[in-house]
Amino acid sequence: MGLFSKSINTLDDLFVHTLQDMYYAEQQIAKNLPTMISKATDPALKAGMQQHLTETQNQIKRLEQVFQMHGQPAKGTTCAAMDGILEEASDILGVAKDNDVKDAAIISAAQAVEHYEITRYGTLIAFARQLGRNDCASVLQQNLEEEKATDRKLTELAESRINRKAA
Amino acid sequence: MGLFSKSINTLDDLFVHTLQDMYYAEQQIAKNLPTMISKATDPALKAGMQQHLTETQNQIKRLEQVFQMHGQPAKGTTCAAMDGILEEASDILGVAKDNDVKDAAIISAAQAVEHYEITRYGTLIAFARQLGRNDCASVLQQNLEEEKATDRKLTELAESRINRKAA
Repeated sequence: MGLFSKSINTLDDLFVHTLQDMYYAEQQIAKNLPTMISKATDPALKAGMQQHLTETQNQIKRLEQVFQMHGQPAKGTTCAAMDGILEEASDILGVAKDNDVKDAAIISAAQAVEHYEITRYGTLIAFARQLGRNDCASVLQQNLEEEKATDRKLTELAESRINRKAA
Repeated sequence: MGLFSKSINTLDDLFVHTLQDMYYAEQQIAKNLPTMISKATDPALKAGMQQHLTETQNQIKRLEQVFQMHGQPAKGTTCAAMDGILEEASDILGVAKDNDVKDAAIISAAQAVEHYEITRYGTLIAFARQLGRNDCASVLQQNLEEEKATDRKLTELAESRINRKAA
């Protein structure tokens, strides 16, 4: 969540900061996905990542909706975790030579991204409910369900074909 | 996975690098958990984190066992993702003033740690199976099950008391 401009005194402050963390994270994902898509060779993986890019753009809009519902300006705060996850992805794609191994590395990186999002949306939903903001929780739940579905699809793809091709 | 000293040419190379990534990550977690435990105030949270520190130390030993089974020296490679997750945790604990809000932030940070481990162990197990190393997969599965159980306990703790106290 980077450096904070103000103290975190209440659960509401923590909710808003976590929202800002995810707003930054989703934007970084949207920026980095096109490179991952261009490096993927398996057609099903390429298509799945392309679909997730569209979903990510919608998820950013849902986060903006939650900021608005909560009376806060939509802004991001540096998320060192997502920066680190994407840095690892970029590093490994720089050194993976074989196309099938590269596809396996892309799935591994994409699942690390998904799991970060799954945990943070889970936390945001729990905070929102505790704050009596079931309306915000319900919008965030849509993002969470999409991330979980993407993670499941990536697991299926890895286990049904990508890892076998890479071995 | 930081900077690589050699290319990733095969799924076996990718498996070993992911193992090194987790070996570094688990060691960083073991180093950082005592600070998080010292900052936690809820007794159940404190006890749960203490138990997870013991588990983490065992998980490091299991990773050493997998390195040995696979004929590789046990060594770590910088994991920018875990560094980022722990940096965020440290930042937020530095600015959270209220003890109950701090506990909620500790749970959120610990769940981000758990989810990173869940995704990476899931990947390692899939790679090991594909490489015909069901023996390694079975050891890694023990770590995965512990991480999933810890994540579930943290969710229960957050939803049953911590978030309510923080609100």
